[in-house]
Amino acid sequence: MEKQKILINGKRLKETIEEFADFGRTEKNGVTRLALSDVDIKARRHFQTLCEQLGMSVVWDDMGNMYATLRGIDNNHPPVVVGSHLDSVKKGGRFDGVLGVLTGLEVVRTIVENGIKPEVPIVVANITNEEGARFEPSLMASGVLSGHFDKAAMLKSTDADGIPFAEALKNSGYEGKEEHRLTEAAAFLELHIEQGPVLESESIQIGIVECVVGMVCYEIEVMGESDHAGTTPMSMRKDALFAANHLISEIREKMNKLDDQLVYTIGRMNVSPNIHTVIPNKVVFTLEARHKDGKVMRQVEKIIQGLPDSSSKEKCKVTTNKLWERHTVWFNENIVNSLEQSAKNLGYSCKRMVSGAGHDAQFIATYIPTAMVFVPSVNGKSHAEDELTTWEDCENGVNVILQTVLDLTTDKF
Amino acid sequence: MEKQKILINGKRLKETIEEFADFGRTEKNGVTRLALSDVDIKARRHFQTLCEQLGMSVVWDDMGNMYATLRGIDNNHPPVVVGSHLDSVKKGGRFDGVLGVLTGLEVVRTIVENGIKPEVPIVVANITNEEGARFEPSLMASGVLSGHFDKAAMLKSTDADGIPFAEALKNSGYEGKEEHRLTEAAAFLELHIEQGPVLESESIQIGIVECVVGMVCYEIEVMGESDHAGTTPMSMRKDALFAANHLISEIREKMNKLDDQLVYTIGRMNVSPNIHTVIPNKVVFTLEARHKDGKVMRQVEKIIQGLPDSSSKEKCKVTTNKLWERHTVWFNENIVNSLEQSAKNLGYSCKRMVSGAGHDAQFIATYIPTAMVFVPSVNGKSHAEDELTTWEDCENGVNVILQTVLDLTTDKF
Repeated sequence: MEKQKILINGKRLKETIEEFADFGRTEKNGVTRLALSDVDIKARRHFQTLCEQLGMSVVWDDMGNMYATLRGIDNNHPPVVVGSHLDSVKKGGRFDGVLGVLTGLEVVRTIVENGIKPEVPIVVANITNEEGARFEPSLMASGVLSGHFDKAAMLKSTDADGIPFAEALKNSGYEGKEEHRLTEAAAFLELHIEQGPVLESESIQIGIVECVVGMVCYEIEVMGESDHAGTTPMSMRKDALFAANHLISEIREKMNKLDDQLVYTIGRMNVSPNIHTVIPNKVVFTLEARHKDGKVMRQVEKIIQGLPDSSSKEKCKVTTNKLWERHTVWFNENIVNSLEQSAKNLGYSCKRMVSGAGHDAQFIATYIPTAMVFVPSVNGKSHAEDELTTWEDCENGVNVILQTVLDLTTDKF
Repeated sequence: MEKQKILINGKRLKETIEEFADFGRTEKNGVTRLALSDVDIKARRHFQTLCEQLGMSVVWDDMGNMYATLRGIDNNHPPVVVGSHLDSVKKGGRFDGVLGVLTGLEVVRTIVENGIKPEVPIVVANITNEEGARFEPSLMASGVLSGHFDKAAMLKSTDADGIPFAEALKNSGYEGKEEHRLTEAAAFLELHIEQGPVLESESIQIGIVECVVGMVCYEIEVMGESDHAGTTPMSMRKDALFAANHLISEIREKMNKLDDQLVYTIGRMNVSPNIHTVIPNKVVFTLEARHKDGKVMRQVEKIIQGLPDSSSKEKCKVTTNKLWERHTVWFNENIVNSLEQSAKNLGYSCKRMVSGAGHDAQFIATYIPTAMVFVPSVNGKSHAEDELTTWEDCENGVNVILQTVLDLTTDKF
């Protein structure tokens, strides 16, 4: 039997995704399953049960990350890991995260029912609190695994009710041992919904993700003077809003010349005193930009840093403050190639692309050969109750992961 | 003795202004004297006492407006009224309003000490709750006097503590009879600080106010789509903030071509969801514009009403909603001429100008021959603790009012 002939069970995948959507399903068919909430704990238990029914052994580490292992022929060999996260944002969708965990489950189910004995262990992973929707920051547990975040600080992170992460973890029953942490693997594979409109708009079935793009976020403050809207001639104003508006036009004009793939967003803007009859004396806005190429990002920063000297500031004082940045994380070229080859072998249309959103894979990629696969998001929507990926697209994505897992675990097959 | 030789006592005026500033003086030498607050009541009593000491009779009407009358030779003749308001905004200045009331007091003091017997009565008026800072709306009592506002509705207006205006008025001791209302007068004269930078910047001592300019205020809503800031290519976005930015540029370009004297302000702007990593799906902003000429105002409205069809809306949906408008109120030409002639006779530099801010005089002008005089505001500031008009400028302004009162009340002098 050729490997390409082994395919997952789409009907079963669909039913399992819907089964998990019941843990926190909202009225509008979305999901609210905040990390370590009651419904998240129920989803974890169900995941554990399903894995154990397959003969897998399930452990969890000191950050609550769960690892279900299907033993292979050589269990001293580092495993191939398939995983993502079961937690969601508030009023999120049925696919974000959970799809990647259930991909692992479906891959193992297919392998087991086909009587295949992998040469190395296969691990299905559920990484805790990817979203950061209940406990900030996002990517919390992968950040600790990869040494990017300090565990002690993470344990102190509190939710809106003041409950610390440490307490929620303890009460969940999923506080495990540090020795169970994922420290080594042959590969980490994550299937995820695209969360953007590119694949759908180009009618492409599979996205092979090369990297998680770098980003930078600045806060820009424009200080003017709050004079009376009725009595101050236009020429004598120091209107912070008009100055901000002019600066934004300048930013757009310059940014749009840089590169087609650059994305930038002014998501937050606050005007003071924000009264309709008073000239604004202060406008603060954020500007975040993302691109895979560090050279482009440096041009972006040059534009931002030039704003305080711009003529667009219109008699106002402009200051810029870098809130944070992260550099592009490139995925493992061998794994990327392997995933691409799998998609092609299966006859799916595919393209290489970048991830503009953050994922646990970007931290795990720093110490394990990692790559991701995207499947189309209808209307590009995610983190919303109407988030949707067709069942066919889900199935295709899982087949790509299965194919690659088979390639990586059954060389002699 | 020539009338022009009679001048007010600048030292006394200054002392009286400072005396009244003690009713609610703030740490930074401003004033908080909200309408019918304890300090406002104290200021009212002091005003009453000072007027009575001059031999004036003081009454108040059913809105708490106070009228101090100096009897003339013919007391059946409608009086000449000088007035303004004793209330202030929170952390306002020592001049806004109170200057106009104390102008009346100083005018009468000067007339009395010079042994002049006016042919007609002179009334000094304190109009209740001009600012609307405690009880909305502003210009409350003059609105009732002139029939613009419904008294019953005004009585129900509550302050931040839920106290109705009716209750505060009753408790103040200044709830009087409706029959005492100002229903008829030969003239209403109001001296006020400019609250803008024009006189100071042009080194002019006296502003002769021809009108209170008309204004219109719109709310403009821009609806886009809230997609992920990292995953949505620029070309596929419906970014409400960028669309609003483009619209504002268009508004500015078109408005700036209309007329030098047009002022317009985007004072309030709210962005949703206002998260730095999310493309804004909604921006709502106000646009208010003021000009004396109705033709210019109609051009302004045409620009605003064209926004929903503008190419600047960038794939977003734009709706405009007129929040309110008021038409220009022209002051009485005879009174305006008289005030201008007084200023010239006194040797002051003066210019005709408009009031961009609202004043009780604009309502009173609808049934009494009315006009206003402005004196310079240092740095154009008002409604602020550092509001300042020099003592010399205050004195000049009061002399202009005195001169006109003498002209209007002592024809045979």
